[in-house]
Amino acid sequence: MSISLDYTNMMTDAVGTEYGVSDEEITGFIAQTKGIHQHIQERRDSGELPFFDLPHNLAAIDEILTLAKEIQADFDDLIVLGIGGSALGTTAMFKALCYGHNFQSKEQRGGLPRLFVLDNVDPDGFATHLALCDPAQTCFLVISKSGTTVETTSQFLVARQWVEESVGGVFCDHFVLITDPENGVLRELADREGYRSCAIPAGVGGRFTAFTPVCLLPLACVGVDISRLLKGAADFSRFVCHGDLETNPAYLNAVLQYLAYQKGLRTSVLMPYSDRLKDIADWYRQLWAESLGKKFSTDGAILHVGPTPVSALGTTDQHSQVQLYMEGPFDKVVTFIAVGEFDQDLKLPDYEASPEMFYLAGHTMGELIRVEQLATAAALVRNQRSNCTIHIPMVTPETVGALIYLFEVQTLFAGYLFDVNPLDQPGVEEGKLFTYALMGRQGFETKAEEYASIKAHLRSRILSCK
Amino acid sequence: MSISLDYTNMMTDAVGTEYGVSDEEITGFIAQTKGIHQHIQERRDSGELPFFDLPHNLAAIDEILTLAKEIQADFDDLIVLGIGGSALGTTAMFKALCYGHNFQSKEQRGGLPRLFVLDNVDPDGFATHLALCDPAQTCFLVISKSGTTVETTSQFLVARQWVEESVGGVFCDHFVLITDPENGVLRELADREGYRSCAIPAGVGGRFTAFTPVCLLPLACVGVDISRLLKGAADFSRFVCHGDLETNPAYLNAVLQYLAYQKGLRTSVLMPYSDRLKDIADWYRQLWAESLGKKFSTDGAILHVGPTPVSALGTTDQHSQVQLYMEGPFDKVVTFIAVGEFDQDLKLPDYEASPEMFYLAGHTMGELIRVEQLATAAALVRNQRSNCTIHIPMVTPETVGALIYLFEVQTLFAGYLFDVNPLDQPGVEEGKLFTYALMGRQGFETKAEEYASIKAHLRSRILSCK
Repeated sequence: MSISLDYTNMMTDAVGTEYGVSDEEITGFIAQTKGIHQHIQERRDSGELPFFDLPHNLAAIDEILTLAKEIQADFDDLIVLGIGGSALGTTAMFKALCYGHNFQSKEQRGGLPRLFVLDNVDPDGFATHLALCDPAQTCFLVISKSGTTVETTSQFLVARQWVEESVGGVFCDHFVLITDPENGVLRELADREGYRSCAIPAGVGGRFTAFTPVCLLPLACVGVDISRLLKGAADFSRFVCHGDLETNPAYLNAVLQYLAYQKGLRTSVLMPYSDRLKDIADWYRQLWAESLGKKFSTDGAILHVGPTPVSALGTTDQHSQVQLYMEGPFDKVVTFIAVGEFDQDLKLPDYEASPEMFYLAGHTMGELIRVEQLATAAALVRNQRSNCTIHIPMVTPETVGALIYLFEVQTLFAGYLFDVNPLDQPGVEEGKLFTYALMGRQGFETKAEEYASIKAHLRSRILSCK
Repeated sequence: MSISLDYTNMMTDAVGTEYGVSDEEITGFIAQTKGIHQHIQERRDSGELPFFDLPHNLAAIDEILTLAKEIQADFDDLIVLGIGGSALGTTAMFKALCYGHNFQSKEQRGGLPRLFVLDNVDPDGFATHLALCDPAQTCFLVISKSGTTVETTSQFLVARQWVEESVGGVFCDHFVLITDPENGVLRELADREGYRSCAIPAGVGGRFTAFTPVCLLPLACVGVDISRLLKGAADFSRFVCHGDLETNPAYLNAVLQYLAYQKGLRTSVLMPYSDRLKDIADWYRQLWAESLGKKFSTDGAILHVGPTPVSALGTTDQHSQVQLYMEGPFDKVVTFIAVGEFDQDLKLPDYEASPEMFYLAGHTMGELIRVEQLATAAALVRNQRSNCTIHIPMVTPETVGALIYLFEVQTLFAGYLFDVNPLDQPGVEEGKLFTYALMGRQGFETKAEEYASIKAHLRSRILSCK
């Protein structure tokens, strides 16, 4: 496995001095990087950053595989109830490694269950998915670190009743609760009511749970070789767990992104040229936005900082977003993910009735998508638009594991550069409290008054089309 | 049907004077709006803007319905081959109006075909979808206005061979070509080889084809009542086809978005609180980006202008992007789409084992998602973040048709405000030419040399992890 970061097109000689990065700017971060790395190491050694070591914890796999076997044996469908970090990693890796799985017949799937990740409380969406499944044959993974996530709780309430109406008292067997090892409502329920459960390792925040049961259990259930996933990340860790900026792609890419941001390129596009990697970009979107989008610096100064991550898909978005990337404001940096080889490449055949298409004959579709990525990168350079490319040889459990680990380390390091805490998300609290208040939850009466007061002080402007 | 635009939270009294809009700023656009409207009317009258009148052209429906009936009778699966404007509208409306369709059994679907929209040239993705279908039972809609789109052409070559290998000489019956009425390779092929075909009305650009056979044919095939879709847009047209800024939501929203952009809110988030509307935001992303992201003004001055559209989904992205929206830089305006009533709301039941969840009991999931949208909007206001809300009563063919028409007119009008041509996309040309060159197409040798020269002049920086 060889993953590379091509940052040629980030540099001044490619895109000019205003937005390009110079060698001196990069080397200027060498000393700081060593300092940050040492600090990260110390925190890691003291147990503060357990996500770093998850890929090496192969012992945790056995329990997951045992549970997965039970689920595979008993159920036709598996539904994840969770949101944000409890959903995005599973969706991303499931699409990358089991593309098309849910559309295959049970036989084509080797008897493995389908997997639906439901990460919303739209009743139309939820009811539609339930209607596709048989409650007697469906297993739910209820995933919430705190156990109080209102969306997941609501889903759980509906799903529990739905199963109970079908199977009666044994409904507990249809649920696995994945939550904090010690605290919270779901943990209490597991202990008291006899649900099976898995622990989310202490100290691992929602968006860093890719290598915990949160993602590994559902992925194992649908046949992903999770040991290869972990091995890919573990093997790759030697490239990203050292303090030498110029040979650490996680640190280097963080520095490049940070420099781009300082030059006004505040939108960071991640654009894989692979259908299977589409949702990796979506997973990354949470990681990058929630970790770096912060009001306060680490010492409490007001910053209002953070790049805006945008997920795009090549070639598809060449016909949707690339016009803007080429000609719009100079406020974006594009990171491509290019795949060296596809699992099942397709030859483009001749079609004698149409000589205009002859130039394609003999090429493959894989060649075309690779060429389009190169062509788009070159056209961006022509328009002085910063871009870089992460190359992976193929989409495999190992490369997906490595990519995820790369981005996790990159994000943590970027937190230091932006001088924010990449592990919290205080900005979502306010909305949660208003939700509790508006749902009439006891203890949130003051918040309800506050909401009413906001509304009362605004002049309402509504244009109604009747 | 009553659709409304609530822009309370865009105003200075909600979000402050720096990013908020004042009444005076809006009324300052009244005269200009009348002028632009008159100009639009003149162009419309002279036949330059045919997309405006598509919803009123009910006569076009009969041909589409006849063809759809034939396809329904003969095939189990329908695959759209197209990209950008040839795909996004269909995907958006299909998800909105046939949610879950492809997962249903043939019986549950009322015997109607599944619909796959393939808008990429990833061979893994393409091969996986072909493997789900039986070539003898599959119909392809090949959609390209020019007939030369390289992605669509490549898909067509592979699909044609795949079908021919199964059914032999009658393969033509498995393809419907949707293209220009007179010109291009696909039109020639249709005329010469006997493929069935539909015409994309002259003068309607890719991203404005929602109400043409490009989208209407595939949607009709899967059972969408396309006459209701058109009626929704046609009925709504009276609200958006007049020059009074204060009562025209398309013009007013364009002005609000334009003012927000001028104040530095250059990222425009569209965030429906509805699983079914998720891909409407993705369709809009093309419309807004490709229409407004331009280098030149209409008189040739260099602008490099254009808001960056971002699609998000409520409540899901509250746990992914909202942290950034609340606390990050002041560079975003959020437009929510809120749904009044869901088709199948779900009651949140009691669960006696868990008193911590009691506060939810008696509410519905639909209530929760509506409350979360209100809570998020209020929390944004608390953080001085501009936002507005488009309310629709339900997700129906009529409201979806109206929404699409609203955004189309809004985008055209916004083109005038930004002083760019919203109907072209010159910035994607360069990448296309490089692709032709790298695929060895005759006549593009100079471009190939140009590509080589770009590469030769750059110092390559690649960090390789081996």
